[in-house]
Amino acid sequence: MPINNVDLESVVGLVGAIQEDPSRASTTWSAAVSWTGGFRSEVRIRDFGPIPSDEPAGLGGTDTAPNPVEQLLGALGNCLAVGYAANASVAGLELKSLEIELSGDLDLHTFLGLANGHAGFRSIQARVSIESDASPEAIEALHEKVTATSPVGHTLGRAIPLVIDLATDQRTEAVA
Amino acid sequence: MPINNVDLESVVGLVGAIQEDPSRASTTWSAAVSWTGGFRSEVRIRDFGPIPSDEPAGLGGTDTAPNPVEQLLGALGNCLAVGYAANASVAGLELKSLEIELSGDLDLHTFLGLANGHAGFRSIQARVSIESDASPEAIEALHEKVTATSPVGHTLGRAIPLVIDLATDQRTEAVA
Repeated sequence: MPINNVDLESVVGLVGAIQEDPSRASTTWSAAVSWTGGFRSEVRIRDFGPIPSDEPAGLGGTDTAPNPVEQLLGALGNCLAVGYAANASVAGLELKSLEIELSGDLDLHTFLGLANGHAGFRSIQARVSIESDASPEAIEALHEKVTATSPVGHTLGRAIPLVIDLATDQRTEAVA
Repeated sequence: MPINNVDLESVVGLVGAIQEDPSRASTTWSAAVSWTGGFRSEVRIRDFGPIPSDEPAGLGGTDTAPNPVEQLLGALGNCLAVGYAANASVAGLELKSLEIELSGDLDLHTFLGLANGHAGFRSIQARVSIESDASPEAIEALHEKVTATSPVGHTLGRAIPLVIDLATDQRTEAVA
């Protein structure tokens, strides 16, 4: 069993392939969302089954699934978990357990149309609990590495260009 | 059956409550992530069952679930879907269907430790297909409203303060 159950050989293979051909580092990721009525929708990603989304009753939903801002926190936590597992394994550190608690504050005024301005999270906090026999210095170095290289962390911590377009054919159809 | 199956009464009730007491717009959302070995983890949100996360085999994972950056795209699409459903319903527009395709480009150099810099999505695109009898102008106005008020959209499109801390007790435990 490899350290932390991480398939380092694949990672090292990918690193080598990218060093030979840097264009192999360019990746594109996709998801498709279908609205299913009310505040419910579902996401399809590759061949995986649909994952549902809903809002709590207090926000007008039917409370059948986590809501989008909770999903965003989950994506950050999962991304950090991959980062700790990968970088710990490269450094030869064994993780016994890793738990991440995430939270974020959000003011509903803009979403509800009661004010202009920022509709999103004001800030996001993540608290990482690591159980390991590694030294505190090694854990701190791991932590610094992970936060400096997290794809979801950087996407949230920086302003990313978002292009949200209406499909033209549907607009045409709407005229018909 | 209310328009678009949206429980507008709850939304209007929340708006009224916030107008009486603006502090009721302050919300906090949470998620808890547990690493389960390799590049796998799971998220727990409120009382909902755990939602798994993994990486594709090419990235060293076991490909049992969508990965964190795909989950992030899904969260954006779900958030936009709530926005369209809510604002269409307030405007009295019936949506027959709503599909959102999302994609984002990501360069792996930083995540893999091959370069410093931005590890996240360079940009994110969402393509929204709406089927409705509403006029193109009404659909366009709906679209403008949604993109101006999307909590996940604004969280991605702006730089959000992220605080990622190691739990102190665990650091102490690591010394023991």
